[in-house]
Amino acid sequence: MVTKEQLIAFFADDFPQVDLVIESLGNKSATLRKKIDHNHLRPGGTVAGPVLMEIADAALYAAILGEIGLVPLAVTTNLNINFLRKPAPDKDVLAVCSLIKVGRTLAIGEVSIYSEGMSEPVAHAVGTYSIPPDRTG
Amino acid sequence: MVTKEQLIAFFADDFPQVDLVIESLGNKSATLRKKIDHNHLRPGGTVAGPVLMEIADAALYAAILGEIGLVPLAVTTNLNINFLRKPAPDKDVLAVCSLIKVGRTLAIGEVSIYSEGMSEPVAHAVGTYSIPPDRTG
Amino acid sequence: MVTKEQLIAFFADDFPQVDLVIESLGNKSATLRKKIDHNHLRPGGTVAGPVLMEIADAALYAAILGEIGLVPLAVTTNLNINFLRKPAPDKDVLAVCSLIKVGRTLAIGEVSIYSEGMSEPVAHAVGTYSIPPDRTG
Amino acid sequence: MVTKEQLIAFFADDFPQVDLVIESLGNKSATLRKKIDHNHLRPGGTVAGPVLMEIADAALYAAILGEIGLVPLAVTTNLNINFLRKPAPDKDVLAVCSLIKVGRTLAIGEVSIYSEGMSEPVAHAVGTYSIPPDRTG
Repeated sequence: MVTKEQLIAFFADDFPQVDLVIESLGNKSATLRKKIDHNHLRPGGTVAGPVLMEIADAALYAAILGEIGLVPLAVTTNLNINFLRKPAPDKDVLAVCSLIKVGRTLAIGEVSIYSEGMSEPVAHAVGTYSIPPDRTG
Repeated sequence: MVTKEQLIAFFADDFPQVDLVIESLGNKSATLRKKIDHNHLRPGGTVAGPVLMEIADAALYAAILGEIGLVPLAVTTNLNINFLRKPAPDKDVLAVCSLIKVGRTLAIGEVSIYSEGMSEPVAHAVGTYSIPPDRTG
Repeated sequence: MVTKEQLIAFFADDFPQVDLVIESLGNKSATLRKKIDHNHLRPGGTVAGPVLMEIADAALYAAILGEIGLVPLAVTTNLNINFLRKPAPDKDVLAVCSLIKVGRTLAIGEVSIYSEGMSEPVAHAVGTYSIPPDRTG
Repeated sequence: MVTKEQLIAFFADDFPQVDLVIESLGNKSATLRKKIDHNHLRPGGTVAGPVLMEIADAALYAAILGEIGLVPLAVTTNLNINFLRKPAPDKDVLAVCSLIKVGRTLAIGEVSIYSEGMSEPVAHAVGTYSIPPDRTG
């Protein structure tokens, strides 16, 4: 099992340009937080869709690495995202991932994405990662 | 019909922080180009998935606006993306969008994403935008 | 609110050829059961994918009608399904749907599909229905 | 390479209960036809969504087997389908599949589904099959 601290160090190397905080990790799940600033907004004062996609993808990656170990060769093969509500422009975004299956070569999870302080999700994603079959994790 | 020049001006306002070039527009299609630099890469020397998602989403938006006019209230409701091959780290990314349907309230299109110089796509996306039913474009 | 009994009567008219039992309904959720027989199997002794898609789609429809009333004009606009494990050939299939959003014109939900007696899902779907904006339900 | 005749014989064994005609096969593509009768309709006189999902899935399977050989262990892992227009209740349904990638363990394709005689598709699907890595086809 990977600890939150180990994963934080790994992410700092793997996604240095991405401003993500790992809030929790374990039990086939992960919660990530992203601080929203004006670079993430679109006219109309809402968070741009690709920002939500990025945090969904990262939350899946975190939850999977938490299960299989720090395997750098895990790559996304599919991501399906539904945008549900307009996120607040001045609140952090939170992504809560639960893995549905961790198989030998594919791992699949779902992610609910929230604008902090709203009870209903702003987006929902399901994604698949291809994972190396001969990992030792 | 929106011209390429009108859409370029609109994008400059709407996505000022995004480095995208509209290469062509018209006939329910659009082609966008993105210059890749080290901020877009992941360890292993490949373009990060969210960069491909962003250009897929923007290519859909461009093709839809080319059809319905410069409607700022069009928003993505669903995006499904398959990652197919590893993009080159030092080549531009091109997204070629063809709309499948432009209805009264929903527009749907597909996007093939290429690493310049490779004949096979590196990713393929299908996305849906919700469009205002009472637009006058 | 629609009762289970009202929805059962509605389904009997709407899907007369489909052998589905509505087990529970309410609180933005629905559980459906389908008896599997040899017509639903593929060689290798597993339930055919389209059988799982059908029950996923019907579970979404049931949960949505349970919320918005018996509106016959609700239609699926998108369904995304991941097949996770091989269902047993001789067990009922259960679909458990939870709605994620019921908006003015779109309703979105997720469905976990089980082979009875297995604790892990055999498939997971997310689907969107278009619903008439001026329903009176 | 598999011929159309070989695939027809294989389908007759693999999907005996499904009424599908393989119209063409080859070059990473396949076209299938399904005769629509009253069992496939929903109230309102349209073809039920699961009928379109079934033919989309079968068209992917046909196109993949046409490329990799008659491998019975290929299974769908993901299918994403958008429903675009109402099919005619009294016309055959045609599914035209083009493969986007045939890799070592995954094959991905897209499918346009038509109601015969309409120029615009009634649905569009993208699907992934898992294929055995050590096949000899």
